Amino acid sequence: MNSNQFTKHLNSKEVKINDLVWNKITELVRTNVIPYQYLALQDKIAGAEKSYCIENFIKASKIAEKMKQGIIPPVYPANKWVYDEKNTDDNAFHGWVFQDSDVYKWLEAVGYSLQNHPDNKLQRKADEYIDIICRAQLDNGYLDTLYIINNRDEIFTNLKDYHELYCFGHMVEGAISYYNATGNDKLLNASCRFADLICNTFGDDKIKGYPGHEIAEMALVKLYELTGEEKYLNTAKFFIEERGKKPYYFDIERGRKTIEDNYHYNQAHIQPRYQNEAVGHAVRGVYLYSAMADIAKAYSDNELFDACKNIWDNIENKKLYITGGIGATVDGEAFSFDYDLPNDLAYAETCASIGLIFFARRMGECEINAHYADVTERALYNTVLSGMAEDGKSFFYVNPLEVLPEASRFDSRKRHIKPVRQKWFSCACCPPNLARLISSLGEYIFTQNDDTIFVNQYIGSELKSDKADIIVTSSYIENGKVSFEINTIRSFTLALRIPSWCDNFDLSANYEMRNGYAFIKIDIQTKIEIAFEIKTKIVKCSNKVRANIGKAAVMRGPVVYCIEEVDNGKNLHLLKLSETPNFRYKNDVIFADGFREKEDDALYSEYKAPQYDECKIKFIPYYTWGNRGENEMSVYIRI
Amino acid sequence: MNSNQFTKHLNSKEVKINDLVWNKITELVRTNVIPYQYLALQDKIAGAEKSYCIENFIKASKIAEKMKQGIIPPVYPANKWVYDEKNTDDNAFHGWVFQDSDVYKWLEAVGYSLQNHPDNKLQRKADEYIDIICRAQLDNGYLDTLYIINNRDEIFTNLKDYHELYCFGHMVEGAISYYNATGNDKLLNASCRFADLICNTFGDDKIKGYPGHEIAEMALVKLYELTGEEKYLNTAKFFIEERGKKPYYFDIERGRKTIEDNYHYNQAHIQPRYQNEAVGHAVRGVYLYSAMADIAKAYSDNELFDACKNIWDNIENKKLYITGGIGATVDGEAFSFDYDLPNDLAYAETCASIGLIFFARRMGECEINAHYADVTERALYNTVLSGMAEDGKSFFYVNPLEVLPEASRFDSRKRHIKPVRQKWFSCACCPPNLARLISSLGEYIFTQNDDTIFVNQYIGSELKSDKADIIVTSSYIENGKVSFEINTIRSFTLALRIPSWCDNFDLSANYEMRNGYAFIKIDIQTKIEIAFEIKTKIVKCSNKVRANIGKAAVMRGPVVYCIEEVDNGKNLHLLKLSETPNFRYKNDVIFADGFREKEDDALYSEYKAPQYDECKIKFIPYYTWGNRGENEMSVYIRI
Repeated sequence: MNSNQFTKHLNSKEVKINDLVWNKITELVRTNVIPYQYLALQDKIAGAEKSYCIENFIKASKIAEKMKQGIIPPVYPANKWVYDEKNTDDNAFHGWVFQDSDVYKWLEAVGYSLQNHPDNKLQRKADEYIDIICRAQLDNGYLDTLYIINNRDEIFTNLKDYHELYCFGHMVEGAISYYNATGNDKLLNASCRFADLICNTFGDDKIKGYPGHEIAEMALVKLYELTGEEKYLNTAKFFIEERGKKPYYFDIERGRKTIEDNYHYNQAHIQPRYQNEAVGHAVRGVYLYSAMADIAKAYSDNELFDACKNIWDNIENKKLYITGGIGATVDGEAFSFDYDLPNDLAYAETCASIGLIFFARRMGECEINAHYADVTERALYNTVLSGMAEDGKSFFYVNPLEVLPEASRFDSRKRHIKPVRQKWFSCACCPPNLARLISSLGEYIFTQNDDTIFVNQYIGSELKSDKADIIVTSSYIENGKVSFEINTIRSFTLALRIPSWCDNFDLSANYEMRNGYAFIKIDIQTKIEIAFEIKTKIVKCSNKVRANIGKAAVMRGPVVYCIEEVDNGKNLHLLKLSETPNFRYKNDVIFADGFREKEDDALYSEYKAPQYDECKIKFIPYYTWGNRGENEMSVYIRI
Repeated sequence: MNSNQFTKHLNSKEVKINDLVWNKITELVRTNVIPYQYLALQDKIAGAEKSYCIENFIKASKIAEKMKQGIIPPVYPANKWVYDEKNTDDNAFHGWVFQDSDVYKWLEAVGYSLQNHPDNKLQRKADEYIDIICRAQLDNGYLDTLYIINNRDEIFTNLKDYHELYCFGHMVEGAISYYNATGNDKLLNASCRFADLICNTFGDDKIKGYPGHEIAEMALVKLYELTGEEKYLNTAKFFIEERGKKPYYFDIERGRKTIEDNYHYNQAHIQPRYQNEAVGHAVRGVYLYSAMADIAKAYSDNELFDACKNIWDNIENKKLYITGGIGATVDGEAFSFDYDLPNDLAYAETCASIGLIFFARRMGECEINAHYADVTERALYNTVLSGMAEDGKSFFYVNPLEVLPEASRFDSRKRHIKPVRQKWFSCACCPPNLARLISSLGEYIFTQNDDTIFVNQYIGSELKSDKADIIVTSSYIENGKVSFEINTIRSFTLALRIPSWCDNFDLSANYEMRNGYAFIKIDIQTKIEIAFEIKTKIVKCSNKVRANIGKAAVMRGPVVYCIEEVDNGKNLHLLKLSETPNFRYKNDVIFADGFREKEDDALYSEYKAPQYDECKIKFIPYYTWGNRGENEMSVYIRI
């Protein structure tokens, strides 16, 4: 690795978003999603599935109190993924094993939000939640409500399945965000105490385990960066190194041999540094890969970074949906084999694309290569935005590229494909993950090193750095135009990413192209303008992807478009795009010339060339699909 | 219903097969499959999964003996689908709940085979099996080894799941076939005793239950036809009428409410006479529909027959693969919704196509309409033949229309799709079902009424009837030519089915077309020749079937062709058939002109019209696929 290439993102405090497209979204999250989730965590949303999250913390705090008094609390089973109200004692844990993480994700989102929008009332609510959380912490620092409530003797005995280290990771991330925003270090201190326990529990001469669901690794790196405590970094590295070693720790802890193949699910089949393909549960995968990039950078570990690059290439070139979705199969919510990217069976979880953005940013901080921010952009403007309804009140977990509502109803293979967004789920991973990503969007715009500020995303914003204050004004999605008003503090280089979708651009200053960025010397106060030529394009997916042979998609800039039944009638598969479609773009909508194949009567008949009627085809941005009721949708169209 | 349209098939004893194509297959079954299965039933095939079938009968006979002596035998659980050797007592039942049916199906095949090929040695083996079976029968006539061995008190307490009435149905069908061939009535008498018990147990003022897996219904009709015992017919009718009535019997017997939707699996959601769509488990479905047609005919029940016709239309026009396969989804091995006929996810079980042939024959005996025999032909020459390897030693349960071995290995959604045929399974429904169908092929060639003999299948054969002796010489599949040497006993009409695939034919006699048949008056000894114009055709599947849009298949006569990797290289989806393919046919193989799309490098790129290389494409009959090792296969090809 070349440390000259290392950069670091600017954080939310240094970057304020002020963007035509994104203001609406971040405001939705701030004014709608965060308050809704606040209530959902306490089960105060009528009709929504129960979360039990706060309830569990309250129960755990009572247990913690009893333990302090020397009272031995009751024991309940801690042996399954989800604890149904009907089947468990009222005093026992309820919900999913990872339920604690919901409030941590919410606090993380609140933290980012408060950085840009101070809000005393919201802060008081968050403080109350933090008080509830901290009361549940045991004296030794341990804090996971499932085990505190149900069985203290079984703490850290099933790392593979039961998410203690996962909840810990989210606790750390929430604590850091909240501390950065408010200076309130109560949750941060609690996190450090839990982290200390973990560092004392796991290691070379201690328990040689590692998380079943990764995230603790990258959280520990963040905690190290904030506190300077090397043991946090070391433990993160230990988790990465130990993973996949034989004999498998997951076998040792369970006392039985699992079918080896199952370790792919947890990316634990071999040591991460020898991995070169994205496999298994997609969210877990990208959380691990993010931490691998962190550790590779922290230790300048070339071998580990090569593994990251190989995995990245595998995703970018063989396992990435055009929408930035990853995870092609519902089975294990996992990466499938190379080029297996079915449209109507896709999993493409919202959380997985969020995790891919984490991975991309870290890779971009290891080496200067615009690819990483290109993929971030693809995920951001398509799968991530698609994850939330236009009113911020419902969410997609799964982001298919083709939907037939009838198939979702009648075909069990497609039951995960929802034709409309869903309200808050009991297994609520995606909505709070979306909230924390969107609230922290400022962290994905700029990276910098000693002499250069890199602009990775063209989102209207104000940056305050040691080199300059910059006001970015952007109508990037609408017409490709972005301007930078720069108040220099000292000379520096501004590096503008030239998106891979853009063939031509006008830049108002001299520049030098390198690694996908245009580098501009900035010595004095100035205004830089760039205009990316933004055209509606027909995009072909490689014919190695079987699902898309004979088809194409429509993109405008980074935005993938799709067709919906409400605009184009039933049976979208009968439509065919003209190769000269004469695209007309207006207000986010694209019209194109095309054809509709006439319907056949007979199930089987002697072949005659199909008959077509000319028609206009209406495309809308993929991220807006499913906002007008249940209907057919398709990203790809025959050509 | 119009009883003037009623016909009856000629049976195996009256029809001897002598056909270029089929002699090979029937001989394979006779000399290879039947002997192999004889050993498999006793677990004497090294390396094959155990059947336990004969072992269970021997265990049951010991229990039956003890019971006669007044000894109370031990009790084991009878509460699951499959009883693993490892998990059960050595003295308990082993294998699947329906294991008994394997020997019955084998005896049925043996019976048909002996009718055309007397074989004392084989007959002695069958007699020995029959002795073993009959020794297990209880005094009251009951005979199902699972309940006899494991728990006599639970007999007939789980009609929904545990297949007693299914095994009974196969017992009857085996007994009738064997009796017809040999005159040995031992198993027939045992079947009648069991049938008597069933008639005494189920009925309006008795238990109001019905089979979870249908077949007893059609078996009881057969038994009535042989014995003239009306109660057998009445009980068959009772089962049909009772099915689907509310409150559901399956709820009553289980003492709990099942989710209503699940009754579709057993076709028990509503009474059969009100059904109009093929739903649920496909094999169960067509077994039920067969019996519905039997009962409709026996009682001239118009309403029930209309239900049969609606269901038939639904299958033929919306749920039938070009190969005659039915059951588009692995989930419940079931019919999917209209026009959902995925190629690479198909279930299309061999047994389901066999059952479709049962249904088709019965429908054809209710009304004169060549469609029924057309569908039989489609199933016979494609999915049924595909079910068995060319050497008769391995079998497909699932008959996909597109296979990518990589997907079968790595994609859990396609794990049921096997790229090569499998040896005998413990759940061995398809191989013995194939054996009994192929051995009884003679029963599918001719039907007759008082004045007409209908030729439904053009299979070389010799017929002896009350109207004439007819020698059919056929090279139908090769060149469409069939001749009939007719020795009249009395004047009659010969009706030749004109296959729906045939546009032109030459017939050597005067004829009148009606309902898809050419009717010819036969008064004297004569020879009739017919030559069907047989061409290789491109066949289009309706564009209502999403999987096949932009694609076509190749057929020659009734035979569906396919492409395999071994002939055409990897990535069959890159091939494109020319619309003027200049087909060259020789020895079952077809060459055609086509194109291969050049492979793309980038996963996503701006659309350019694809580049093609011209190529020759080699097609082979679908039923021969998978005989040259694991490789890609596809029925449909882009055009």
